[in-house]
Amino acid sequence: MKIRDLPENTLHRLVIYLGVLESLERKKIEAISSEDLAKKCGVNPAQLRKDLSYVGNLGTKGVGYSVKSLKFSLKKFLGRTEEWNLILGGLSPLGEFLLNCKEIQKEGFYFMAAFDTRGENIGKVINGVSVYNLDQLTYVTKAIRVDMAIITSEDKPEEYFEAFVNQKIKAILNLSAVPMFVEDPGVKIENFYFPMALTKLSFFLKNSF
Amino acid sequence: MKIRDLPENTLHRLVIYLGVLESLERKKIEAISSEDLAKKCGVNPAQLRKDLSYVGNLGTKGVGYSVKSLKFSLKKFLGRTEEWNLILGGLSPLGEFLLNCKEIQKEGFYFMAAFDTRGENIGKVINGVSVYNLDQLTYVTKAIRVDMAIITSEDKPEEYFEAFVNQKIKAILNLSAVPMFVEDPGVKIENFYFPMALTKLSFFLKNSF
Repeated sequence: MKIRDLPENTLHRLVIYLGVLESLERKKIEAISSEDLAKKCGVNPAQLRKDLSYVGNLGTKGVGYSVKSLKFSLKKFLGRTEEWNLILGGLSPLGEFLLNCKEIQKEGFYFMAAFDTRGENIGKVINGVSVYNLDQLTYVTKAIRVDMAIITSEDKPEEYFEAFVNQKIKAILNLSAVPMFVEDPGVKIENFYFPMALTKLSFFLKNSF
Repeated sequence: MKIRDLPENTLHRLVIYLGVLESLERKKIEAISSEDLAKKCGVNPAQLRKDLSYVGNLGTKGVGYSVKSLKFSLKKFLGRTEEWNLILGGLSPLGEFLLNCKEIQKEGFYFMAAFDTRGENIGKVINGVSVYNLDQLTYVTKAIRVDMAIITSEDKPEEYFEAFVNQKIKAILNLSAVPMFVEDPGVKIENFYFPMALTKLSFFLKNSF
């Protein structure tokens, strides 16, 4: 199996393991058994061990995992020891929130530029990030390396999506109300929208009595 | 199979279908073939038909799906024809953003109260929603029906999580940096954190050359 063919659900769990390990590290916990780690991650120990076998960090029998070492292995495996350049599409309230979000930058994701199509927003500078007209996308991506794009447009997210895909941006986090996909396996799209996440909860509540 | 045992991946796709159908409706599109709908939803037609068989709306041969009718069937199936009461835990910038977010309310999710533990925030009113001390949770949940909670605390998300679970809140969207789980199958947790979504993209980019 090529690593890029890692099952989506496995990737999802590896990302969760990383988040849990980071929180353990903040609490100065140095080692954890696979049973305890599995419980904190919402999986059983067999699943945890199987998933971590992709990463190649197998822990030590009787001691469990070193939090710091497993966190580092996971970060490296997930491409998180590198720095990534982001652009943003659509200066909505969510877009402004993200440009000001310390957590994203702290994790090695750097906004290099934002794009909008409304004249009154072009030229604004938000937390050090300049807002360009979407029609300047080609110009901007020639000047700076762009790894990922985040779509936060409320009124026409498809316009940003199309522009970013045409510009050969290969990784897009779409936070708009419209889920979007491409057939090209060389492009990765993550769709997330707050009301959609809440819809999974409403389905559960409707059927839980 | 009980409906509540619907596979998580199927639920995820049904929520996406709903988002795509809502966007088609906004564009005044009245009918769509299962092939075109599947493409827009990033699945193949067989998968779409199989997923929609849970919902019981099978379309009409040669005509495809009525956008309005399928959207309504999905909304009903997913519990989205009802209204749901939310509380918020942690008055972070993300928390304030969500309290002011029109999209969430428009979709039938209503914030009834927010909670914090820092004295300077207690008593604030944000977009009509009062901020209470977390130790008043029992009092507030006696006065109003609470269906779901959203955790947006940056400094101690676990404290809100524990309080909400102890208060028998059955559906929690955790937007903090710390993924959280319960063993009780009567409680549903959704974990989402922006840097985690970006980590799925960084993994992809690291392995796509």
